Amino acid sequence: MKTVLNEVHRQHFPKGELYGGELVVPFERPERWDIIVEQLNSMEMADFVDPDPLDMETVQKIHDADFLRFLATAWDMWAEENYAGEALPTVIPARRMQQREPDHIDGKLGYFCMAIETAITSGTWVAACASAAVAQTGQRLVSGGEASAFALCRPPGHHAARDLYGGYCFLNNAAIAAQGFLDAGASRVAVLDVDFHHGNGTQDIFYDRSDVLFASLHGDPRTAFPHFLGFADETGKGEGEGFNVNYPMPSGTDFQTWGNALDDACARIDAYAPDAVVVSLGVDTYKDDPISFFRLESENFSTYGARIAKLARPTLFVMEGGYAVEEIGTNTVNVLEGFERA
Amino acid sequence: MKTVLNEVHRQHFPKGELYGGELVVPFERPERWDIIVEQLNSMEMADFVDPDPLDMETVQKIHDADFLRFLATAWDMWAEENYAGEALPTVIPARRMQQREPDHIDGKLGYFCMAIETAITSGTWVAACASAAVAQTGQRLVSGGEASAFALCRPPGHHAARDLYGGYCFLNNAAIAAQGFLDAGASRVAVLDVDFHHGNGTQDIFYDRSDVLFASLHGDPRTAFPHFLGFADETGKGEGEGFNVNYPMPSGTDFQTWGNALDDACARIDAYAPDAVVVSLGVDTYKDDPISFFRLESENFSTYGARIAKLARPTLFVMEGGYAVEEIGTNTVNVLEGFERA
Repeated sequence: MKTVLNEVHRQHFPKGELYGGELVVPFERPERWDIIVEQLNSMEMADFVDPDPLDMETVQKIHDADFLRFLATAWDMWAEENYAGEALPTVIPARRMQQREPDHIDGKLGYFCMAIETAITSGTWVAACASAAVAQTGQRLVSGGEASAFALCRPPGHHAARDLYGGYCFLNNAAIAAQGFLDAGASRVAVLDVDFHHGNGTQDIFYDRSDVLFASLHGDPRTAFPHFLGFADETGKGEGEGFNVNYPMPSGTDFQTWGNALDDACARIDAYAPDAVVVSLGVDTYKDDPISFFRLESENFSTYGARIAKLARPTLFVMEGGYAVEEIGTNTVNVLEGFERA
Repeated sequence: MKTVLNEVHRQHFPKGELYGGELVVPFERPERWDIIVEQLNSMEMADFVDPDPLDMETVQKIHDADFLRFLATAWDMWAEENYAGEALPTVIPARRMQQREPDHIDGKLGYFCMAIETAITSGTWVAACASAAVAQTGQRLVSGGEASAFALCRPPGHHAARDLYGGYCFLNNAAIAAQGFLDAGASRVAVLDVDFHHGNGTQDIFYDRSDVLFASLHGDPRTAFPHFLGFADETGKGEGEGFNVNYPMPSGTDFQTWGNALDDACARIDAYAPDAVVVSLGVDTYKDDPISFFRLESENFSTYGARIAKLARPTLFVMEGGYAVEEIGTNTVNVLEGFERA
C-alpha cells in the first residue's frame, strides 16, 4: 500500500511537555516518524506519496471556525506577550464558569484545550495542517480506487475535538479523512480507533451523526488519559444514537481480551456496512509503551492487521500515538504488513 | 487591630509555577508573608494572635466533601506515582466531556482544578488548613466583639470554589470566615473583594444565596485571570439573584476609576446592612504588580482603607494576592492603617 507523508511535521516539536509536574522532552517526537519510515524502507514497503495541499473546506466541516482561527493565530498572539516558554494554558473554563472565548491568549489557550501537556510552538499550525493534508491525500487515494493507504500523520489527531486541542493533537486527521470519504460519495464511514487512548475528539465530532460509526478500544478512562470521555455508556445521541461504541479495558489487558474487543468492533462495523474504514492507528497498546498500560506483543500487531483486512473494505490507516520509540516502526508496519498479507 | 497568623504557611511553597510556558519560582511565595509581618512590626501594629485549630464543620459548609477528601489525599496519591515533579494537572474535563471524578490522580487533579499554575506539594494541605484556621480565628475575634481583625492568610483562598482549586488557592478562607459569621449569629455578611483578580471561588460558593452579598472589583476577565468568571452580567441566581456584584475594569485603571467602583460597592453594602464585612484583601491592584494591570499608588491603599471604615461594620480583612513583593508590606498595612485611623 502507498504511504503518504512529508517532512513538515518536524516544524512541530515542543521543547517541553508537561508530565509528572515537570517539563520533559515530549513523548510525541519527530523520531517516531523517522523510525516508521526506516521500517517501511527495510520491509520494502516504501511506496511513498507526497500530500496534496490541504483542502480547508473539509476541515471546516470538522472543526469550528473560531477554533481554526485560534490555532492559526495562537503562536503569534503568544509571541507578543514575550513569555520565555512555549504556549501552554494556565487557566480553564471549569464547572459553572463561563464558556466564552476570552480576548487574551492565556485565556484562549485554556478555552480551547482539553489537555495541558501539549505546547503550541511557532511551527505547530503549519505542521498540523500538513498532517491533515497527509490524511486527506490518503483518503483521496482510497476514494480513487486504492484498496488501502497509510497516512503517516504527525502530529496525531484523535484527541482534537471540534473546538478542543490537546493530547498532542490539533486537527483531527482521522475525522477529516472520514469527512473526505463522505464528500467523495461514501454513504457511511467507520472509524476504528485502536490507539491505547480513547479517541475523544473523533467521538465528539461525530457523536450526533449516523453517517460515521465510531468504535474505540482503549484504556479505561477512570485510570487512563483522557479520563473524561470513553466510557461504555457513551453510545451517541440524536441521529448518532447507536453509532458510537467504546471498549474501555483495564490495566494489564493482553491481546486475548483486546482481540475479543476488536472482533466485536469488527462485527459492528460489518453490520454497519461502511463504504470505507478509517483506522486511527496508535501502537501504544504495546507492552513497553511508557505512558500506557496494555500488554500487546509485537506479533499481535500483525494478527490484528489481518483481522482488519477481513472487513474487506477500502481502508485508510491514519497514524496516531505510540511512544515506545524503538519498537514503533516494527509495531506500526506489522499492522500494515499483516493487513496486506491477509 | 489584631493580626492572626502562624508559620505553617511555609510548608506550601512549590518549586515551580507554570507561567509563560515555563516552571518559574511561584509569584505567591512565603516572602510575601514575611514582608507584611515586617511592616506591621515597623508600624507598631504587631498585635499578633495564634489561630485556633480549624473547625472543619464550617469548612464542610463551603466545600464539597469529595473536594476536601481530594485535597487531603492528593499529595500521597501523587507520590505513589513516583513522578519527578510536584502535582500539576495535565488533562481536564472540557466542554462536552464527562464531569466525573476519575480514579487516577492525573485525572483527579484535572477534575478539581480551575487553573493549572498551582502545584500541590507535600505541605499544601496542612498549609491550606492552617490558612483557613487563621481566617476562622479572625472571624471569631470579630464575632466576639473586636471591631476589626486581620487574617494574614497564606495560601490565599478567593479562587477556590466549592469543588475547585487553582490560582494559588485551595480552601476559600474568606468564604469560610463569612460562613463563620453566619454560624455565630449574623444574618447577613458582605464579602468585598478588592484583589486585582476576580474572586471566582467566593462568587461560586455564594451565588445562589442571599445571606452573603459578594462584591468584587477586578480586571476584566476578557483580558485578566481567571478569564471565565467575573463578568458584570453575573448577578446571582435563585435566592441569590441580586446579591452578586462584579466591577470588571480594563487595563490601566487608576484609583479615580477604581475608587468610584469601590464607592458604588460600598453603597451596595450599606444598603444590604450586613452584620459583618469580610474584605478579600489583595494588593495586586498596585501599579508595579508583575501579573496585574491596574495603576494604584501606595497612598491609594490608605485612602481606600478609610473608605471601607466608613461602612462602620465589624470587619475582617483576609489576605489574598499581591505579588509586587517589595511593596506588599506597605500596601497591605496602608489599608489596615487607613481603616484604623479613619
